[in-house]
Amino acid sequence: MSRTPVWKSIAVALTADIAEGRYARGDRLPTESQLAATHGVNRHTVRRALADMSEQGLVHARRGAGVFVTARPTDYPIGKRVRYHKNISANGKIPGKKILTLNTRAADAQEAEALGLVQGDPVHVYDGLSLADGQPIAVFQSIFPADRFPNMLDALQKTHSVTKALQLIGIPDYTREWTRLTARQASPTQALHLRISGGAPVLQSTGLNVDPQGNPVEYGRTWFAGDHVTLTLGSE
Amino acid sequence: MSRTPVWKSIAVALTADIAEGRYARGDRLPTESQLAATHGVNRHTVRRALADMSEQGLVHARRGAGVFVTARPTDYPIGKRVRYHKNISANGKIPGKKILTLNTRAADAQEAEALGLVQGDPVHVYDGLSLADGQPIAVFQSIFPADRFPNMLDALQKTHSVTKALQLIGIPDYTREWTRLTARQASPTQALHLRISGGAPVLQSTGLNVDPQGNPVEYGRTWFAGDHVTLTLGSE
Repeated sequence: MSRTPVWKSIAVALTADIAEGRYARGDRLPTESQLAATHGVNRHTVRRALADMSEQGLVHARRGAGVFVTARPTDYPIGKRVRYHKNISANGKIPGKKILTLNTRAADAQEAEALGLVQGDPVHVYDGLSLADGQPIAVFQSIFPADRFPNMLDALQKTHSVTKALQLIGIPDYTREWTRLTARQASPTQALHLRISGGAPVLQSTGLNVDPQGNPVEYGRTWFAGDHVTLTLGSE
Repeated sequence: MSRTPVWKSIAVALTADIAEGRYARGDRLPTESQLAATHGVNRHTVRRALADMSEQGLVHARRGAGVFVTARPTDYPIGKRVRYHKNISANGKIPGKKILTLNTRAADAQEAEALGLVQGDPVHVYDGLSLADGQPIAVFQSIFPADRFPNMLDALQKTHSVTKALQLIGIPDYTREWTRLTARQASPTQALHLRISGGAPVLQSTGLNVDPQGNPVEYGRTWFAGDHVTLTLGSE
C-alpha cells in the first residue's frame, strides 16, 4: 500500500486552514515560495497541492495575481420541487433574482415541443440573473405558454420570482417533470453576467415544470457558474 | 410580439439538415461564405446561427479547419440505479471500460467520510476510461473499502466493470445514495484521455453507491466530456 504523498499532505493541511477560517473566501494564499518554506518542501510539491485543491474548487489561480480561496459553493438540490428561494436560503445565503429582459415572441421547435405547443405559438420569455448574497451564481431563461398565461409578464415584473408569479396567476404548485444536465463553456455574455472569465465552465440545466394536472407551466434553461454551485441529488 | 430572427431561421434549417442526415456526425459543414450564399444572407448572420448551434452542442468549430457536426450526445440517466453498461446500451451504443490504473492506498479525509472509514484506512482505487462505441466519453475514479472487499482489484481486473466486479465478490445489487454535480475545466490529463482540448468543460459527478443494507460500497467521481454526454433526471 502506498503512503500518502507529500503534496497530498500539504493540500490537506491547507484545506484544514481554510475550513478553520485561517484563510477566508476571497483571501489570497501565501505565495508558492512562502508555502514551500513554511512546509519545508519544494515549490513543485506546493504547486501539485494547489492544483489538486483547484481541481476540487477550493482555490483558484488568477494569472499574475496569486491563488485565492474560492467562495464556498452553493448546494442546489434538484429534486421533485426545484425552488430557488428555498434552495439558496438553505445554504444560509440571501436569494435574489434580477430581471434582464421580459418579452413575448414565437416559440422555436424545442420550446414548442417541451411546452406542448406548436412552433410559432407565442411564449413569454424571462431572461434573468440568480443571486446568492448579491453575487450572481446563474443566468437563466424561463419560457411560459403566453396564451395560457396572458398575465405572466406582469406577475414576473412584480415578483421577479417564477414561483410567486405562478401563484399570482393561479398556479399554487408545480413539480419538475425532467431535467437534463451538461457542461458548457460560458458565452461572453454569460461570463460577463456571472463575473467569470470567458470560456469558464458552466453547468447547463434544462428542465420542464408541470402543474399538478401534468400540464407544462415552465420550460427553462439555467447556466450555473461551475465554481459557485454544486447540484445535489438525494435518494428519493 | 417579435418575429423569429433571420439567424434563428438559418439555425433551424441547418439543424433540420443534420436531423435528416444531410450532414452526418463528424461532417464538415459548408463554409460561412457558402452558407451565406445558399441562404441569401450575410456572413454575420451565418456566424450568429452557427454560434447558437455550437452553444446547443450540435456543431463545433475547429480553428482553421471549419465547423463540424458534433456526434449525437449520449443521454445518461442519473437515477436510483446508475449502471454504465445499461445506460450506454439504451443509446444504441456499445459500452466499454478501459482500466488506466488499479491500486491500493490510504483513504483521504473525503473518501473516508463518504465510505464510513477512518482517514488512512486502505482503499482500492480504479482509475478508468468510459467508452461509447469505442470513443472516450468520461474518465472516472472509483474507490472501494479494501478491508471489506479484499478481492475487489482481482474482480475489476477480470471484468473491468464495477457492477460485475461487485457481483463477483458477493454484492448482487447497489443503489445510488447521493450525487453531486458541477462543471469544471478538464485537466490536461483528462483532456488527453477524453480527446478534448485542454480547459474544455467537463461535468463532474461525485456519488456514493450503497448495498441493500445501506453500507457504502463505492465512492466515485466521474468527469463527463460536456459535448458528449447529457445527464438526465426523470421524475421518479
